[in-house]
Amino acid sequence: MSAVRTPPTASTSARRDAEATKAAILRSARYLLARHAHADITLKAVAERAGVSPPLILKYFGNKDALFARVMSFEADAEALLDAPLHELGRHMVRHVLESQSERGADPLLRIAFAPLHGEQGDILRANFRAQVTERLAERLTGPDTGLRAELAVGTLLGLGVMYGIARGPHMRASTLDTLVERYAPVVQAQLTP
Amino acid sequence: MSAVRTPPTASTSARRDAEATKAAILRSARYLLARHAHADITLKAVAERAGVSPPLILKYFGNKDALFARVMSFEADAEALLDAPLHELGRHMVRHVLESQSERGADPLLRIAFAPLHGEQGDILRANFRAQVTERLAERLTGPDTGLRAELAVGTLLGLGVMYGIARGPHMRASTLDTLVERYAPVVQAQLTP
Repeated sequence: MSAVRTPPTASTSARRDAEATKAAILRSARYLLARHAHADITLKAVAERAGVSPPLILKYFGNKDALFARVMSFEADAEALLDAPLHELGRHMVRHVLESQSERGADPLLRIAFAPLHGEQGDILRANFRAQVTERLAERLTGPDTGLRAELAVGTLLGLGVMYGIARGPHMRASTLDTLVERYAPVVQAQLTP
Repeated sequence: MSAVRTPPTASTSARRDAEATKAAILRSARYLLARHAHADITLKAVAERAGVSPPLILKYFGNKDALFARVMSFEADAEALLDAPLHELGRHMVRHVLESQSERGADPLLRIAFAPLHGEQGDILRANFRAQVTERLAERLTGPDTGLRAELAVGTLLGLGVMYGIARGPHMRASTLDTLVERYAPVVQAQLTP
């Protein structure tokens, strides 16, 4: 590999701008969904908060419902979270949660912790979380009580994310990723392959 | 024990009213603290939302700062959470979290999951959580890395609470308390007495 880094071309930087804009639109939709009923949020409000025009949102996401579905889906994150053979899935999931937090400053899985307890948005998030995360994990398990074990395994991961990202435990923060994986992976794996 | 239940006396029902009023005031303060800066919240606003008069808040809580300190403290819950000998603390804590959720519909510990990431209120909640919950647990542990192990143990409990109370995992909800304690206590205890 060459040590010389070429400057980004015009097309690279355009792609970066597009990604940053999409991220701003998703953040805006997420912000408004956490505070208002689905039906009360206009495309114009999402656009204004993101600092873009409504047609740009249509260009990137198709329509309002498609945008909201994207915000409330765990599909893409579950794909990455579950992408390892079962016997090392505990390690992989712990590493994935901690890397999401430490490198990207966000853990998409944790959106379930903020799901409103009442109303449509919370119910959609809960239904998606079950279908896309816990039930999908349960299908990979064998032995008794696969559904319960999957929920408890995912529970341990959510707790890891809350403790690291929100409570910001200073001892966790001062530990290396490898130390945390070493200590916590067995906790998760015990539910997967007891 | 007599099977006959006597109707509540006037003083019993007065005590109940007082408890209900205090709870309404705490709920109101919690609601406003989650949405506004500490300094911007007036006693009048808390009173209005709770449906009481400002002087009644002073009577029950002393002053605004004392009321807010109460809302942001984990002291009372940590007392109950940690109230067991170390060798059976895992079981006790799991049972405590699940009973808080299933019997009282709330888990005071979970307030840390909703701590705002920026601003004074989140920082106070985080500092209280460390001093009153994780560090207090760490002091009871022996061996290496007591601080880290305490954080990871509390992390598993937070995840249990999120999965049961917010994600509302249907398999957890369909299980008995004893089953859940049986399955999850070893996860917690492994961090306490490895």
